[in-house]
Amino acid sequence: MENIEKIRVGICGYGNLGRGVKLAVEATKDMELKVIFTRRDPETLDTDSKTKVVSITEAANWVKELDVVIMCGGSKDDLPKQMPEFARLFNTVNTFDTHADIQSMYKEVDAIAKEAGKVSVISTGWDPGLFSNIRKLCDSIFADAKYYTFWGPGVSQGHSDALRKIAGVKNAIQYTMPNEEVMDQIRSGVEKQISTTDMHERVCYVVAEEKDHDRIKQEICTMPKYFAGYKTTIYFVTEEEVTKRQSKMYHEGWVICVGKTGDGNHQVMEFHLKLDSNPEFTACVATSAARAAVKMNTRGESGARTMPQIATEDMATDEMNQTFKYI
Amino acid sequence: MENIEKIRVGICGYGNLGRGVKLAVEATKDMELKVIFTRRDPETLDTDSKTKVVSITEAANWVKELDVVIMCGGSKDDLPKQMPEFARLFNTVNTFDTHADIQSMYKEVDAIAKEAGKVSVISTGWDPGLFSNIRKLCDSIFADAKYYTFWGPGVSQGHSDALRKIAGVKNAIQYTMPNEEVMDQIRSGVEKQISTTDMHERVCYVVAEEKDHDRIKQEICTMPKYFAGYKTTIYFVTEEEVTKRQSKMYHEGWVICVGKTGDGNHQVMEFHLKLDSNPEFTACVATSAARAAVKMNTRGESGARTMPQIATEDMATDEMNQTFKYI
Repeated sequence: MENIEKIRVGICGYGNLGRGVKLAVEATKDMELKVIFTRRDPETLDTDSKTKVVSITEAANWVKELDVVIMCGGSKDDLPKQMPEFARLFNTVNTFDTHADIQSMYKEVDAIAKEAGKVSVISTGWDPGLFSNIRKLCDSIFADAKYYTFWGPGVSQGHSDALRKIAGVKNAIQYTMPNEEVMDQIRSGVEKQISTTDMHERVCYVVAEEKDHDRIKQEICTMPKYFAGYKTTIYFVTEEEVTKRQSKMYHEGWVICVGKTGDGNHQVMEFHLKLDSNPEFTACVATSAARAAVKMNTRGESGARTMPQIATEDMATDEMNQTFKYI
Repeated sequence: MENIEKIRVGICGYGNLGRGVKLAVEATKDMELKVIFTRRDPETLDTDSKTKVVSITEAANWVKELDVVIMCGGSKDDLPKQMPEFARLFNTVNTFDTHADIQSMYKEVDAIAKEAGKVSVISTGWDPGLFSNIRKLCDSIFADAKYYTFWGPGVSQGHSDALRKIAGVKNAIQYTMPNEEVMDQIRSGVEKQISTTDMHERVCYVVAEEKDHDRIKQEICTMPKYFAGYKTTIYFVTEEEVTKRQSKMYHEGWVICVGKTGDGNHQVMEFHLKLDSNPEFTACVATSAARAAVKMNTRGESGARTMPQIATEDMATDEMNQTFKYI
């Protein structure tokens, strides 16, 4: 394939996700990385010398040079600000994962992208993303579908942040763990009310002075939404231990779907991910979604899209779409 | 929802799959079953009195009465003959599963459906179907994807038929079983050559006179493609035992995908089905694909489609597509 036919990709934001996207794009045969946009001083970015790094303020100068930009900023502060600007200029993909705000992000970006004649794929990755697709598929297939999502063992940034806000906590990391007994009950068709707090357990590693331990324990276990009601285990450990744990980015997750058909036949559909690197996997999904954004836009489509609105064929390379080997 | 807005469905063929589709359509809120086409005498079909049953030869009279026909005939003899006729008249869905012939079926039906301005979704169900989609998704996401499909425990009709063709075999049933040790090796990233015959085992229940047992065993174990090379276990049992087993239609299957990213990070994506009733689940998938066929055709699309070409949103009801709850 000639270079000129390759999909020209930009990355906006160069943290764990951005580094993963760089690797993912470079591993494809049909895409090439043209530029990384950063809010930082471009000179300070730790990347290879062949990749162009420019200030995010220069993005508008790159409209003709790029087919798609993969947005790798954070969901809390970066994406809400950057998405309206970039969706106006480029086909984009993001991994926005503040579930409660996805609908409003969709509406805002949809209007902007339609006006600009571009496609923006929002909330890709695995959850939201692949898992959203499986949940919807489950409900599309079964008339009486029930589906349950489990995560972990893996780090929850939101819960780790919540721990670090407690007075006296110097550093902390929180792992979400699935309740395997409840998973097996669901698979086997036990019909009982399963509460959110039954589905997961929480394990916290906290750095704090010994005099504060009892109070901190108390504050954690009673923190509404985050820990109250959950089986929570707290370990007080050294700063070194937490720092070491913070360098590991494994995660795991399941969507377990159950449906009844005919004369009480129990049908189970399950999707499972076990990831050594959460950001690198998320980056791979975002990169294939970027391919889809370009294909859809080339066909004349515009507006916002989420994963359940994208056919796998659009995420695949043209080479893949010429064979029937997957069938 | 008023009746007049419902998707009007016909079923062609009323065996296990057709009965499953009837149940699946009746369980939806947005579809209604209008007619069953049969090759048999319509009077002899064991269905309820409110369902209209007519001869397959009358299908052309129903063009204005139906939005889609779900083809429930067999892959070997029925579909190759019926698909060209029906694809010319209706939007259709089939579960054609002769993998080696899917590409030629696709090309034939694509030309017919395009000329007729209709959509034909071919080879839906779970494998081919949902599994095809996962295999393609895996390759779309990972640059160095490896994926493996396992089936069972469950009955293989093809292998059961092969057993019954052996001289002296009065009846027989064959179960395909996955090799769980190999599955675990794949999940854990063991890099070794895995042969097709390593992945599955074969268990046969055979009815035959005792004098023939040794010869039949020998013929089974040396039968090329079907049994030779596989770990095969043979039980000689009563006719009653086989008949009882033939009434159970459970099946199970996995697609296990592994990819490497970054600095040797091992990523596993797995899709698993555990079904009490294989035909009823296949019927549910075909029914949601019928919804997609109608939606795509209503948008002006025509031609053949396979599952990786269909976005989940098209398989979902309009009601489902109005919410963001799956995200």
